[in-house]
Amino acid sequence: MKAEPLMSEEEAKKAAGKLNYRHGGLLVVVVQEESTGQVLMTAFANREAVEKTLSTGLMHYWSTSRKRLWLKGETSGNFQLVKEVLVDCDGDSLLAKVEQIGVACHLGEKTCFHRNIKELIKDGK
Amino acid sequence: MKAEPLMSEEEAKKAAGKLNYRHGGLLVVVVQEESTGQVLMTAFANREAVEKTLSTGLMHYWSTSRKRLWLKGETSGNFQLVKEVLVDCDGDSLLAKVEQIGVACHLGEKTCFHRNIKELIKDGK
Repeated sequence: MKAEPLMSEEEAKKAAGKLNYRHGGLLVVVVQEESTGQVLMTAFANREAVEKTLSTGLMHYWSTSRKRLWLKGETSGNFQLVKEVLVDCDGDSLLAKVEQIGVACHLGEKTCFHRNIKELIKDGK
Repeated sequence: MKAEPLMSEEEAKKAAGKLNYRHGGLLVVVVQEESTGQVLMTAFANREAVEKTLSTGLMHYWSTSRKRLWLKGETSGNFQLVKEVLVDCDGDSLLAKVEQIGVACHLGEKTCFHRNIKELIKDGK
């Protein structure tokens, strides 16, 4: 497994500084598997998480539950190697195309989006 | 253009009621084009927007800028016909697979994610 930085630390600071962290100091990150196009998860990132993502080539987020910077895979080994990052039209959302090591979901599924919403209306639930 | 509801209004209320609107009463919605897998945009939705999306088969969001319910396409004609909706593992994010009428981005591009983040570090910018 070889992570490839997208840019230098200085460039990462510059790029991250141009984004809009308007959701309580955070922006939205969508993660898509580059090889298949499958959407794996969404999460939030603050400026530091964006800088680290770009300068290391490994997806970093801001954990809203643990209130700290989170390197995806630091505990599970399920790292996400960054291949490409795109910015949306108003700069407050990122689309990261990655190579997923292992699976994205802590429940063991490949993607966090593994339930059809229709399952929520089944009888007895 | 024919929108197809995913479920009845009553079922939509039930499904929407089981989700977690923990970001200021909102959840994150990722929109992907069903036919190509291309990620088109991200937006937020409150409970009403989720209900209307499910019961009409047209993507509705909560506009954080205009502070109101927003039927995507109501002004532009660029409606999003809902094909499938998936829920993430902790119920606070949705993945909607859609058929996009026209384009998703108000700037005229197909997807809102039309800029590579490396463009933000080019000289002179």
